[in-house]
Amino acid sequence: MVTARAYLVIADRLQSLIESSAFKPGDRLPSIRDLGRTHGVSVPTVQRAMEELESRGIVEARPRAGFYVCWRYRAPTKLAALGGASLLSGSTALGRLVQHAMVTLERPGVCALGPSGPSDELFPTLKLCRATSAAVRRAGIHGLHAFDVAGATRLREEIARRSPGSGCCLRPQEVVITAGCTEALSLCLRAVTAPGDTVVIETPAFYGLLLLLQTLNLNVIELPSDPCTGVDPDHVASAIAQRPVAAVIVSGNFSHPTGALMPDRAKQRLVDLLAQQQIPLIEDDIFGDLYFGSRRPPPCKAYDRNGLVLLCDSFSKSIGSGYRVGWVAPGRFLERVLEIKLAQTGFTATLPQLGVAEFLSRGGYERHLRGLRKTLSENVRRTALAVDRFFPAGTRYVRPSGGNFLWVELPPVCDALALQEAAAEQGISIAPGPMFSNHATGFAHYVRLNCGRLWSVQIERALAQLGRLVVDQISERIGTPVSDARN
Amino acid sequence: MVTARAYLVIADRLQSLIESSAFKPGDRLPSIRDLGRTHGVSVPTVQRAMEELESRGIVEARPRAGFYVCWRYRAPTKLAALGGASLLSGSTALGRLVQHAMVTLERPGVCALGPSGPSDELFPTLKLCRATSAAVRRAGIHGLHAFDVAGATRLREEIARRSPGSGCCLRPQEVVITAGCTEALSLCLRAVTAPGDTVVIETPAFYGLLLLLQTLNLNVIELPSDPCTGVDPDHVASAIAQRPVAAVIVSGNFSHPTGALMPDRAKQRLVDLLAQQQIPLIEDDIFGDLYFGSRRPPPCKAYDRNGLVLLCDSFSKSIGSGYRVGWVAPGRFLERVLEIKLAQTGFTATLPQLGVAEFLSRGGYERHLRGLRKTLSENVRRTALAVDRFFPAGTRYVRPSGGNFLWVELPPVCDALALQEAAAEQGISIAPGPMFSNHATGFAHYVRLNCGRLWSVQIERALAQLGRLVVDQISERIGTPVSDARN
Repeated sequence: MVTARAYLVIADRLQSLIESSAFKPGDRLPSIRDLGRTHGVSVPTVQRAMEELESRGIVEARPRAGFYVCWRYRAPTKLAALGGASLLSGSTALGRLVQHAMVTLERPGVCALGPSGPSDELFPTLKLCRATSAAVRRAGIHGLHAFDVAGATRLREEIARRSPGSGCCLRPQEVVITAGCTEALSLCLRAVTAPGDTVVIETPAFYGLLLLLQTLNLNVIELPSDPCTGVDPDHVASAIAQRPVAAVIVSGNFSHPTGALMPDRAKQRLVDLLAQQQIPLIEDDIFGDLYFGSRRPPPCKAYDRNGLVLLCDSFSKSIGSGYRVGWVAPGRFLERVLEIKLAQTGFTATLPQLGVAEFLSRGGYERHLRGLRKTLSENVRRTALAVDRFFPAGTRYVRPSGGNFLWVELPPVCDALALQEAAAEQGISIAPGPMFSNHATGFAHYVRLNCGRLWSVQIERALAQLGRLVVDQISERIGTPVSDARN
Repeated sequence: MVTARAYLVIADRLQSLIESSAFKPGDRLPSIRDLGRTHGVSVPTVQRAMEELESRGIVEARPRAGFYVCWRYRAPTKLAALGGASLLSGSTALGRLVQHAMVTLERPGVCALGPSGPSDELFPTLKLCRATSAAVRRAGIHGLHAFDVAGATRLREEIARRSPGSGCCLRPQEVVITAGCTEALSLCLRAVTAPGDTVVIETPAFYGLLLLLQTLNLNVIELPSDPCTGVDPDHVASAIAQRPVAAVIVSGNFSHPTGALMPDRAKQRLVDLLAQQQIPLIEDDIFGDLYFGSRRPPPCKAYDRNGLVLLCDSFSKSIGSGYRVGWVAPGRFLERVLEIKLAQTGFTATLPQLGVAEFLSRGGYERHLRGLRKTLSENVRRTALAVDRFFPAGTRYVRPSGGNFLWVELPPVCDALALQEAAAEQGISIAPGPMFSNHATGFAHYVRLNCGRLWSVQIERALAQLGRLVVDQISERIGTPVSDARN
């Protein structure tokens, strides 16, 4: 029998060893059998401890080679709490940043390290088109009619069928199809908040969420998100103790942009403490299927016993951005979400829904996801390698265990916005740190790199150019030439 | 030369004659040549006067037979002004009514006189599917990527290309693609209002709009919409003189549900008077292409010289409800609309956009619209005929000159909600009057009949059954049997 306590004890012990540098990044850990012997526990217990460490982004399994300390694992840097702040003043500035970044991305010939999702080459576009055509033929002239504001029954059934795989057990009736995850978040926020309310979010945060909160006139408390373990439930507890909070919004799985993965225990604790105060938890699980480890990490929703978690998800990061098929399982707020959906956007387009449903039902989705995860994991590794090679000393990151980003902290003297300009001139797009906070100075020397493209010489070259630009920027600012590589 | 004054004088004179019953519904008017002689004006002047009367819904042209007084034209009944009212209290009640109506519609075997659009048989579904497939093939794997929050360039170009046909001249950059007209309205309202603001609308009004206003916490002044000529600019002028108004929302062309058509002069006057006060006008032109007369009536936007009109439209009523492709030309509020769109729903699904763009570019749209207009016009005529035949004395309506509804006023003793229940038991769906107002008692004895289905014996039978149910209801309520037909 694997007891809950034993494996966590082992996992924590190994984590301490790694953090104390007894095992360094890239090191192979002793075998499961050896570890069991050393610590006096069974093989299954060690196995489970390793899975726990994997889910924490600390170790990774390599097929037929055992477990390794993640290539660039570092003890997390705690970010300073930024406190509560009304957003209205920053609204236009952020909007402009986002629009500017988008315009940059559209320029022809740009090497896009800036976008927020995997690129088209990694999506099963042709299979999806074939599935859509088949679905349309089968549907006939009535099948494309929009008649249920909750979405196409077939698609809701497919989503429900897949839900046990992530530890939730959703019924089709609990699921509402939306125009992407953005609409899902927008509906949830409108369902549980009123203008002027305060919500708690992680920082850094996806700029789309920040824009949404601004347009809804919500006040925001930004809690620091540890780049390894995400938001700390204790921080949430103190935030909600200080003032009335209408909702908490987190991405437990591969938070955007850090890629942080909340440990299962933290998710459970967060759900429980919010349940005590009856505060809704809006969860964005859009990257949940893009894990690099051996198991799909559960969303917070898996621990929800009170219907207080509103789980938002989408197929935009896994099968294509243009279909705009997302969904929400809004728990006890189902009726309110449907009411707002009916008023705000009405029905969701039928055609993409039927296409996705058909694609899912054909069973190719799991196979596709396996390939996509492998590619993303490898690309994140290569991007990290390139950063190590080309970026100056003082550059830091935590290699995530899922998603498609590398969130890079440049030396503090750097200015990510100026870097964005300089990079754009060389035909490279990046997403600068200030896009991810309402506080313009919050992440001034951070950049988000997209790792979701087919790897190529061009990308490697762009990363090298970017590294040189960082070096140039530092030289310019501190007035002395610096070495262009850390090692 | 046709002078502006001459044709309007003739039109007004003829309208007076018709209202005084000199010409009765169904009567053929004297020939253009004869009228010219009688009134001492040129043939083109009379021709233009007739077009004016057509646009007012008073006369109709029959091919090779001249002009006729509309079959059931009646001098309009002025509705009492309902005054301002906050809606929050009525929210749940209205939402329930709408949801109830939708559930009723989904029951198998229902004869649907309730839906809000033409039925699938009237849509070019197969052609649209073929166009979509072709567009997808041409787009390749990158073409389905969502990269512009304003929508696919090709579709915006097609919309701009068609815009002069309605008297507007839009550039592609002025157009934002939305998920149907509902999202367009929602974006416009959020762009120009804040919660707690007051807006002016017509009554009766589309329930979707009422729900939207409720979820946005807006206060509403309902102005009576004349079933022939829509909202009166003088009423709007007094409403905006009384208190600050953030926006006015109208459907100048075939208002939902009455089918009222604002005369061109009234549109122009409305635009001008709002421009004086710098109040935005949100215009829902979703039925604008479904005119029965000889020319496409212009939207208010055609008179906009200040960028204050936000024109909302959609292809949902003309080529299919499931594609959810709408658009908005938000005038000077373009940037704000884009910002909210990005935050609220993000990109619009690419696939349906490319399909519609391809369909439009192939040139089949105009041909399809001609057929659809003919069918709808004929169905409205037949529905009106059936109401005359089967409904009791005291039933009234104004036959609209566009759209796909007949808005029927039953004798005041009737209860449309009870009728909806009784009809549902017999497998017939209708939309009861209380759905179209925030004031539960506002249209208690009205029903909206959908005329957008292929005509069949089943429909005629359903209308006969409905007439009997009305008769039964009246007998029950006033205690004496009544005749089951007016004539």
